[in-house]
Amino acid sequence: MSQSDSSARGTPAVVLLSGGLDSTTTLAIAKSQGFELYALSFRYGQRHLLELQSAREVALQMGVREHIVLDVDLRKFGGSALTDDIAVPKGNAPIGRGIPITYVPARNTVFLSLALAWAEILASHDIFIGVNALDYSGYPDCRPEYIAAFERMANLATRAAIEGGQPLTIHTPLIQLSKAQIIARGVELGVDYASTSSCYDPAEDGRPCGECDSCRLRGKGFAELGLPDPLLQRFELE
Amino acid sequence: MSQSDSSARGTPAVVLLSGGLDSTTTLAIAKSQGFELYALSFRYGQRHLLELQSAREVALQMGVREHIVLDVDLRKFGGSALTDDIAVPKGNAPIGRGIPITYVPARNTVFLSLALAWAEILASHDIFIGVNALDYSGYPDCRPEYIAAFERMANLATRAAIEGGQPLTIHTPLIQLSKAQIIARGVELGVDYASTSSCYDPAEDGRPCGECDSCRLRGKGFAELGLPDPLLQRFELE
Repeated sequence: MSQSDSSARGTPAVVLLSGGLDSTTTLAIAKSQGFELYALSFRYGQRHLLELQSAREVALQMGVREHIVLDVDLRKFGGSALTDDIAVPKGNAPIGRGIPITYVPARNTVFLSLALAWAEILASHDIFIGVNALDYSGYPDCRPEYIAAFERMANLATRAAIEGGQPLTIHTPLIQLSKAQIIARGVELGVDYASTSSCYDPAEDGRPCGECDSCRLRGKGFAELGLPDPLLQRFELE
Repeated sequence: MSQSDSSARGTPAVVLLSGGLDSTTTLAIAKSQGFELYALSFRYGQRHLLELQSAREVALQMGVREHIVLDVDLRKFGGSALTDDIAVPKGNAPIGRGIPITYVPARNTVFLSLALAWAEILASHDIFIGVNALDYSGYPDCRPEYIAAFERMANLATRAAIEGGQPLTIHTPLIQLSKAQIIARGVELGVDYASTSSCYDPAEDGRPCGECDSCRLRGKGFAELGLPDPLLQRFELE
């Protein structure tokens, strides 16, 4: 099936939306497939709330039916660079060797579980998540075998498991794409990447640091395509 | 292995604690096995917060190492008698036929996911949940096949999945017990059931309604054992 047909027209889908490049592209892909979009974001104790502003901007641009920002204070458990006061690693350390310090324990499991709760209430059978197995090979919860196990569990967890009906699908349209391929797909679908936020440690005005793993991966992706990053243009950094 | 030995002495375990009869008994069982107890409760938009008072009381009595009450506002999604303003069913309707209206979509999946996040941070390999497949046969997420699928997913989701180490176990010590058997086990372990809260619709002073499914199941359990319910004695209802 072509990704840009509209066979899902009007069918509700829950899309996890952080406001970053990957989840924004995922939302655009779900839209291109004709789904009615329900975007879900989290205030989970992340170091900066800029990504939630991006998520709101993106949700508006894409015409989502509803956007929920849910509070889940993972800081109460402690334990990650994204939610604690540990310094974000920068510079030239190799990317993708071992589990990065920026890994948040069980985050995708928590987020997918909450997406599942909303999907069940919406009678939706489709959840989209922008995980990527190539650029984030260090994250256990970005791997295809993890997603397959979550989907199997989810199909035993809900009403449909007892009452029958269409099974739930966890869509991971980016899982085998490189960052450059993700950006190319988004550009094709008209995504405005100036609205997305990728940096782990942005300045107060939203200016990306350019040095964290996430900035470097993003920069490499645009560079491979020979495209300027519209977010950097916005801050006149290019 | 006997349930009352102490082979797990000092090993951390995360125990889901609602403050009800089942989760309190589960906590007592984890304690009897020698685990160091980390109790996790949720303010998820339930109709009454009495059960959180019970959870705090129980956690103190059992000497837990830490008790976290996490906010997760499931009301934002809508959709259940426990979190909405739909009336709680009472009276003589049969229990356990179909999915009860009191079912909260994906609740155990959400709660177990958050327990998993905390377990990973604590380097714990043990999560306890007081699900029961007999009395709650209508709830899809109380069935053994669901728990097994969650455990499998969890073992792909975390650091240990990549770095190796002891796998995670989801302990469900009550899953095949009747309510009477659960109470008998708790009494044996010295549980003070006067501190527990089971009612779906208690009065402001905590007095149970006596008519909802949960009150009826609890009453039947004590009756089968020929024991008075200490909670009712507290309110001089017996």
